[in-house]
Amino acid sequence: MSTTTPTARIFSSDNTAGASPEIVEAVTRAASGQALPYGADDGTAAVRRRMSEIFERDVDVLLVSTGSAANALSLAALTPPWGSVLCHRDSHINNDECGAPEFYTAGAKLVPLGGDDAKIDPAELRAAARHKAGDVHGVEPSVVSVTQATETGAVYTLDELRTLGSISEEAGLRLHMDGARFAGAVASLGRTPAELTWRAGVDLLSFGATKNGTMTADAIVVFDRTRTAELAFRAKRAGQLTSKMRFQAAQLDAYLSGDLWLRNAAHANAMAARLLEGLKAIPGVVPLGAADANILFCHLPQQVIEGLLADGYVFYHDRWAPGVVRFVTSFATTPQDVDDLVRAVGRHAA
Amino acid sequence: MSTTTPTARIFSSDNTAGASPEIVEAVTRAASGQALPYGADDGTAAVRRRMSEIFERDVDVLLVSTGSAANALSLAALTPPWGSVLCHRDSHINNDECGAPEFYTAGAKLVPLGGDDAKIDPAELRAAARHKAGDVHGVEPSVVSVTQATETGAVYTLDELRTLGSISEEAGLRLHMDGARFAGAVASLGRTPAELTWRAGVDLLSFGATKNGTMTADAIVVFDRTRTAELAFRAKRAGQLTSKMRFQAAQLDAYLSGDLWLRNAAHANAMAARLLEGLKAIPGVVPLGAADANILFCHLPQQVIEGLLADGYVFYHDRWAPGVVRFVTSFATTPQDVDDLVRAVGRHAA
Amino acid sequence: MSTTTPTARIFSSDNTAGASPEIVEAVTRAASGQALPYGADDGTAAVRRRMSEIFERDVDVLLVSTGSAANALSLAALTPPWGSVLCHRDSHINNDECGAPEFYTAGAKLVPLGGDDAKIDPAELRAAARHKAGDVHGVEPSVVSVTQATETGAVYTLDELRTLGSISEEAGLRLHMDGARFAGAVASLGRTPAELTWRAGVDLLSFGATKNGTMTADAIVVFDRTRTAELAFRAKRAGQLTSKMRFQAAQLDAYLSGDLWLRNAAHANAMAARLLEGLKAIPGVVPLGAADANILFCHLPQQVIEGLLADGYVFYHDRWAPGVVRFVTSFATTPQDVDDLVRAVGRHAA
Amino acid sequence: MSTTTPTARIFSSDNTAGASPEIVEAVTRAASGQALPYGADDGTAAVRRRMSEIFERDVDVLLVSTGSAANALSLAALTPPWGSVLCHRDSHINNDECGAPEFYTAGAKLVPLGGDDAKIDPAELRAAARHKAGDVHGVEPSVVSVTQATETGAVYTLDELRTLGSISEEAGLRLHMDGARFAGAVASLGRTPAELTWRAGVDLLSFGATKNGTMTADAIVVFDRTRTAELAFRAKRAGQLTSKMRFQAAQLDAYLSGDLWLRNAAHANAMAARLLEGLKAIPGVVPLGAADANILFCHLPQQVIEGLLADGYVFYHDRWAPGVVRFVTSFATTPQDVDDLVRAVGRHAA
Repeated sequence: MSTTTPTARIFSSDNTAGASPEIVEAVTRAASGQALPYGADDGTAAVRRRMSEIFERDVDVLLVSTGSAANALSLAALTPPWGSVLCHRDSHINNDECGAPEFYTAGAKLVPLGGDDAKIDPAELRAAARHKAGDVHGVEPSVVSVTQATETGAVYTLDELRTLGSISEEAGLRLHMDGARFAGAVASLGRTPAELTWRAGVDLLSFGATKNGTMTADAIVVFDRTRTAELAFRAKRAGQLTSKMRFQAAQLDAYLSGDLWLRNAAHANAMAARLLEGLKAIPGVVPLGAADANILFCHLPQQVIEGLLADGYVFYHDRWAPGVVRFVTSFATTPQDVDDLVRAVGRHAA
Repeated sequence: MSTTTPTARIFSSDNTAGASPEIVEAVTRAASGQALPYGADDGTAAVRRRMSEIFERDVDVLLVSTGSAANALSLAALTPPWGSVLCHRDSHINNDECGAPEFYTAGAKLVPLGGDDAKIDPAELRAAARHKAGDVHGVEPSVVSVTQATETGAVYTLDELRTLGSISEEAGLRLHMDGARFAGAVASLGRTPAELTWRAGVDLLSFGATKNGTMTADAIVVFDRTRTAELAFRAKRAGQLTSKMRFQAAQLDAYLSGDLWLRNAAHANAMAARLLEGLKAIPGVVPLGAADANILFCHLPQQVIEGLLADGYVFYHDRWAPGVVRFVTSFATTPQDVDDLVRAVGRHAA
Repeated sequence: MSTTTPTARIFSSDNTAGASPEIVEAVTRAASGQALPYGADDGTAAVRRRMSEIFERDVDVLLVSTGSAANALSLAALTPPWGSVLCHRDSHINNDECGAPEFYTAGAKLVPLGGDDAKIDPAELRAAARHKAGDVHGVEPSVVSVTQATETGAVYTLDELRTLGSISEEAGLRLHMDGARFAGAVASLGRTPAELTWRAGVDLLSFGATKNGTMTADAIVVFDRTRTAELAFRAKRAGQLTSKMRFQAAQLDAYLSGDLWLRNAAHANAMAARLLEGLKAIPGVVPLGAADANILFCHLPQQVIEGLLADGYVFYHDRWAPGVVRFVTSFATTPQDVDDLVRAVGRHAA
Repeated sequence: MSTTTPTARIFSSDNTAGASPEIVEAVTRAASGQALPYGADDGTAAVRRRMSEIFERDVDVLLVSTGSAANALSLAALTPPWGSVLCHRDSHINNDECGAPEFYTAGAKLVPLGGDDAKIDPAELRAAARHKAGDVHGVEPSVVSVTQATETGAVYTLDELRTLGSISEEAGLRLHMDGARFAGAVASLGRTPAELTWRAGVDLLSFGATKNGTMTADAIVVFDRTRTAELAFRAKRAGQLTSKMRFQAAQLDAYLSGDLWLRNAAHANAMAARLLEGLKAIPGVVPLGAADANILFCHLPQQVIEGLLADGYVFYHDRWAPGVVRFVTSFATTPQDVDDLVRAVGRHAA
């Protein structure tokens, strides 16, 4: 993307957006005066209180700089080095983190499972959960990681989550949720954050915020508080304990305040729905898979892909299969951006 | 520190300060529009250009979220797991990072050396640099890490640095500089950044910014560019590659622009000098060690310590030895703050 | 297996055999007198000379206590922590070493590939060898590991090996061979050790001996001698550098002397062939896959499996699929043992 | 040492000796017949029974190939990666294992303490045991490791051990004993193995045997049996789980049978005492430190050192300080060997 690309034409990811104005204001306010470092500031305490309200129970919270760190730290606190992490084969932890989970866990093994829409198939989980358990020759099944919303934009229903939670619990496994787009899932399902996490068995949640309005602030929400002390040591040791944590805290405090996180997510979801609605009507466009949140996969004719690229549109294509395209919307996407894209597709498809 | 502590009375560290207004403005500007993620944005490229100008050669730059990450990543790129890191026994990497270097290096060993003012003694380095070299029973001497300015507020002179650089080079060791307070050292010495780093043999520099005006942005400046690719993989894997890197880039770009980094550091140093000047005149106050930058150690009578604490002053005391106190100033410390502190000490010493 | 099991009825693995008499004699001889430790003894030097003769070039040799250690050390010397190891999904390193490769490599990722008879499919390798190469978001393809003979008893032909070697070389990947049953492969193929290893591109060979006549001695044969120093440090650090290495050296020296290693392997192979011949004639017995070395898979009727178990036979069954059985022969298996087993199968099948 | 060195002149270490005849016979017996692998054999069970008798309680036992592996595995089971191991600065784990403890623990930190005769000073331990405990900025004090007998040939008295055990227990730390020369300590003190280990608070014992008569067999004796499962996974993952474990078991079974282990150690100790007695009478020879077991340090005139070297004697000298020499005896040292050495020293000193 050259610097002259109209930014309204970027649909490659929700991480190309900037930050919500409320977040910027909060950071500005946080910049004055002195504050105790390393999370001993008032802002960090406030984030914990807000999270406890939102999740309807006392939780601990660790602020981290990336979703990869949130995931890797969480997994390290839930599996021994000789353990395995059961996850979907298309999961971000398996494909897109350069082995961060293996690094943080000191070499645990990710066991990839199948399932539609990047959701773990319960039957595969059931088999893997007991595979070589207790046998020193194999890695020990230790933790299940689910992504909500999934990497392909689908959302686990509450029933689906509960099923995976039950299988995990029966096999004595811990449950981690990669919630890089957790807000989108909550907004999509109309279920409470509590129902979708600890009430379904989730021990640790990677609470993504950066893709949905903050600058560089994500968090781990700790439901199993016996893990908090270990996580604190691991975070420090990983270079994730920032001295001026007030700046991350300010972002998350504003993000959680007045339901900004859910409003942003609902907007991103609505933009994806609007896009789907528009594209469906165009001959030759074939939507693919579930589009429950802010990610939309579809098949486009080759001349459409080429036409969009010539227009300066930025998006992933031909990465999964020939002609398959991914569009991602965000809190910053406007209806105008979407309508322009739909029109462009229509024009090139004609 | 309760929320009602007058923040002007915090002298515990330079990490309790907020952010420079120029930094805040840059972040605000960066919040609008879309930008490519993971360092492919224009801002990140601009930081690299600025660093190359400042260091008078092409350098690579990695933006990271903490100084601990900068140090640990740098060391991991310079030593194998069976290597040793020769450092001062009082160094931050040895005492205050919860084993982050050991984690990132996959278990290299930190070998603590002595020396006044937290500066490595050249004779000790010379001995350690060859200790059991090539012998598989011992860890292999691999990298020297110097802190500039040191943890006690001293600054290596150019000659001192060159001596350590020569010893390292002769023994085939690599050289890392922990520059958490690098700006303060440059401001103090009146030498160029190039002289103080790669011209003295430094391979990788942890370029600290957070203590001196940014929010949550530090960097590794890569002089040995054969390490760049490895550092990029290691950073991603460590959860240090932020998606919206533009926000860190904006901070550093503003920090380096118009010499803000040196002006901030010079101010912090001046405040420490003003404090030293004021305290020296007070009977019973004994300055300790060099105070070349923004850290001042001194011995205070017990009643002075107690009086200051009762006034609400925040500072470290009785941690190194009974009666020993550390005061740290920052870019945000005002002459008034300093003068108030001096007066308070005088009052309690009377 | 109770202590009263007739040991002639154990066909579960070649690791249940004892040691060749020549090996025992060599160990006995080695027990007298003093010898320098840690591989500085004459015996260790002799092993290196023998290996250099056998492989028709100067090689370095590391003696290790297990095949898992040989594999994990080799892989650690060929991939960075952020790299990936391309291997067959049925490989021992992937399934049966409790994550030893992940431990030794500091968290590299094993990427499982398919292919018949536990041989890597060239097309799958070709695709995986370039997957996300150079992209910091994914692990970096770094090393290919082939098992010769394979875990299912097949043997890569020289052409097959060369093909995998070429693909590896073109993609810039290193090549490791897990030769836990290397002797069996050499005996089966009638090709020289040199042809089957470095001439086909192998950098490091896990040279298994324990399954074929030694007590507790395996080795890494180092063709890429730029890796030797690193391997020595890694081995020491892994607790694999024995002080009285003379005892491992004595075993390997005797093992390599007078072609004992090949004679033992040829015998084990012949016993498997004899077993196959015998079983093929029995109605209801279905041999499965290639049986090029000393491992034989077949499908047996349920009543045969039960009958054999009742007779006290020890073997793996119903682990891969219902009715599937694995028989393994060794240097210590006698024709009588085989014929007894064939008769027993025949009796239960009747 | 050339192959023509009279081996009776090697006093460099107890690891240059061969194996006791009883051990060789046991290994020979173990070589016939089949046995279940990976410690499921009868011999391994027998070792556990013998150890339980010797230590007067049920213990678990892991057989490993080296003392370094025994130490590193034990430490890994007693400290988290962010923990510290408090040990003597002269300890083998700190100086002579190439960072094996750091590797196995995933980067824990060894904190070196002082004390005479390589025994940990209780006051230093008391201070270190609480240093930064619970503070995420520092590594967490987690385990104390004592070497019995020490690296300089001294032996902790029972009272000394109990003191260190109490300090550890009060601070909530675990206790590991590096017993590479444990037999020598037991033989020297006339105390029971139980008194010297778990009754004094030891959780895991590295039970050395190789230096005292076996070939390549050491063990971990597990008093805290909650650690057994973890140790088993760690051992497998470290490549320490041998398939033909019967061969290690046979060695240890014979070693423990009929008090061979104590007879061998008593002999080695007696030889060191005989040597000390002889050397004391020679003018210019200055014995140094305690010589409670089979290691003797002394200061020799330079011409004596040179004379011994010219005679073909092998020993460490001038490694700790000019003129300082270490002599080590073993189960295989004869009175004649000792008397010859004394005479040689006397001759060169004249």
